[in-house]
Amino acid sequence: MSQFLANHMKTMKPYTPGHQPKKGEYIKLNTNENPFPPPPEVSEIMSESAKSLHLYSDTNCKLLTDTFAEHYQISPESVIFANGSDEILAFCYMAFCDSDKGMCFPSISYGFYPVYADLFNIDGKKIPLNPDLTISPDHYFNQDHHIVIANPNAPTGIALTLSQIEEILVHNPKNVVIIDEAYVHFGGESAMKLTETYQNLIVCGTFSKSRNLAGGRLGYAVAHPSLLADLNLVKFSFNPYNVNTLTQALGVASIKNDRYFQHCTQSVVKTRRYFIDSFDKLGFHTLPSCANFIFTKHHDRDGAFLFEKLKEHKILVRHFDQEPINQYLRITIGTQEEMAVVVQKMTQILEENHA
Amino acid sequence: MSQFLANHMKTMKPYTPGHQPKKGEYIKLNTNENPFPPPPEVSEIMSESAKSLHLYSDTNCKLLTDTFAEHYQISPESVIFANGSDEILAFCYMAFCDSDKGMCFPSISYGFYPVYADLFNIDGKKIPLNPDLTISPDHYFNQDHHIVIANPNAPTGIALTLSQIEEILVHNPKNVVIIDEAYVHFGGESAMKLTETYQNLIVCGTFSKSRNLAGGRLGYAVAHPSLLADLNLVKFSFNPYNVNTLTQALGVASIKNDRYFQHCTQSVVKTRRYFIDSFDKLGFHTLPSCANFIFTKHHDRDGAFLFEKLKEHKILVRHFDQEPINQYLRITIGTQEEMAVVVQKMTQILEENHA
Repeated sequence: MSQFLANHMKTMKPYTPGHQPKKGEYIKLNTNENPFPPPPEVSEIMSESAKSLHLYSDTNCKLLTDTFAEHYQISPESVIFANGSDEILAFCYMAFCDSDKGMCFPSISYGFYPVYADLFNIDGKKIPLNPDLTISPDHYFNQDHHIVIANPNAPTGIALTLSQIEEILVHNPKNVVIIDEAYVHFGGESAMKLTETYQNLIVCGTFSKSRNLAGGRLGYAVAHPSLLADLNLVKFSFNPYNVNTLTQALGVASIKNDRYFQHCTQSVVKTRRYFIDSFDKLGFHTLPSCANFIFTKHHDRDGAFLFEKLKEHKILVRHFDQEPINQYLRITIGTQEEMAVVVQKMTQILEENHA
Repeated sequence: MSQFLANHMKTMKPYTPGHQPKKGEYIKLNTNENPFPPPPEVSEIMSESAKSLHLYSDTNCKLLTDTFAEHYQISPESVIFANGSDEILAFCYMAFCDSDKGMCFPSISYGFYPVYADLFNIDGKKIPLNPDLTISPDHYFNQDHHIVIANPNAPTGIALTLSQIEEILVHNPKNVVIIDEAYVHFGGESAMKLTETYQNLIVCGTFSKSRNLAGGRLGYAVAHPSLLADLNLVKFSFNPYNVNTLTQALGVASIKNDRYFQHCTQSVVKTRRYFIDSFDKLGFHTLPSCANFIFTKHHDRDGAFLFEKLKEHKILVRHFDQEPINQYLRITIGTQEEMAVVVQKMTQILEENHA
């Protein structure tokens, strides 16, 4: 820390990204990446796009916007893109929060929600989950804060229904409600269409998970044009060129190859079913997941212990040393082959370490 | 604007990016892009990098950091990368400014400096240029604000010397001094080495101009590790994955091909000399440029008029309708062939429109 750091930054605790080991060192199931590479045609598209990189990227992401809008049958005026959905979330905090009005979110959820509250020096209010780690919509009624909820939630994987989200929207006419759909394509229901009815709704999402592009950094928000205008005001006051030329082309390619997208997401869902069943048989209780990860705990073995044991076996998952989730492991769904290895190694760990 | 926009955002005036016409419609000399494409090997590198995009990018940009540090002979602990130097600048405002201490900058300079002051709701103090559009270092002595200066300045193209920058540093022990070197490789002197001596100096730069990568979005800051720690605190609290995998690989490729870099920057400098000489003969007065653009006015023809006439001839340059620079045109240096066309068209415009 230097002597120049602004006062409100001095207690700032940054976000901790998941550990990124050297390639091939681990079966890497700790950061909810897609086990499948992007569609093969992107290699040639990148090779071609590279030739015009001396020119600025399109600040309006026009081709990407039109392609996305057509695919999801929404208006091109109701979508904006950013450098990952993290940047979308940051833009929301910057546009709508101030010392008079902060942001509220589930007490157990994506780690960035409280970090942004600290960074932008606004009130971040944590709303506890139920004892079964579900979210109660009525806890969010008539808030004095804006609201951000991950749906499905992370790290639980549990999803709200669209009618539960509508209840929250109806009971918050004076607040912006942000539904973060990072994992929606693995079993949740998108609230995107509700943006046509509710002018206080922002649906955000990412190409990092279901669209195989974590390293490409592309996020989006869909909302009523009046909210979009606010987000664009922030974008054009912060970094108008936030989505580079290559990433725009990646986004277009991903949307166009819907067959590949469906193949990858369905493979993950199928493997998730196999994996939950196998872990059930080993004595695990797994929350009902609508995401590309599961959140699971063993009936009598310690979460931190199992995390370390898996790591010894070169399998990297995520463990949060925090009540009330410190007995759980968050395990990303990899390929069928990878998950079979996890089942085999876990069987071995449990046999070798009787309770 | 929605009903939800935060109060301090309601008067926000965003940055206006230069007009981006359809490809081939104009000779495009309005946004200071490099006329030469990136080095040819990046096509294959992009094609290869695309295959691992399902995995997250390296938040520490390790290979890029090591390559950059070795090339410029600085410590890897003293450089950070971001999504363009715009994001670096934003990080600086976020780290060091608050209601107690704002940022000061030249009254005529990069348009984003006052925009960030508004966005982050801090005081932005404009320090007038001299009547000849140069910067007086002593105007920046013992400020009660942090300081950001573009060197060479934009849109004038005029550079400060390193000893002038040192004077500013010595007279501001309590302030961070940011030297924005977006255009330094076209004739300025980099202050990068001064970061070893001055713990209040941040030197930032971009791969958009001299490194042919405007569409790739890569910026950097070099500073003492204590200041770097502050910028990293912001980065990891805002968007740890801000530099995507492809852009990191582009940066490495650009630094490695120094011969191409030298060829491109030297071509621009050579063409700039030709172009200034030619415009001199047509009755223009051009400020001494150390950048890949010139700032020029005609002795008796109106700036806005010439801007419009060039546009009719399908040549796009930049004109700022603002005192005291409204008689000037900012013209990016393109290829020798493009600039010869500009000279020919301007000759024609002046002949057809006698004063």
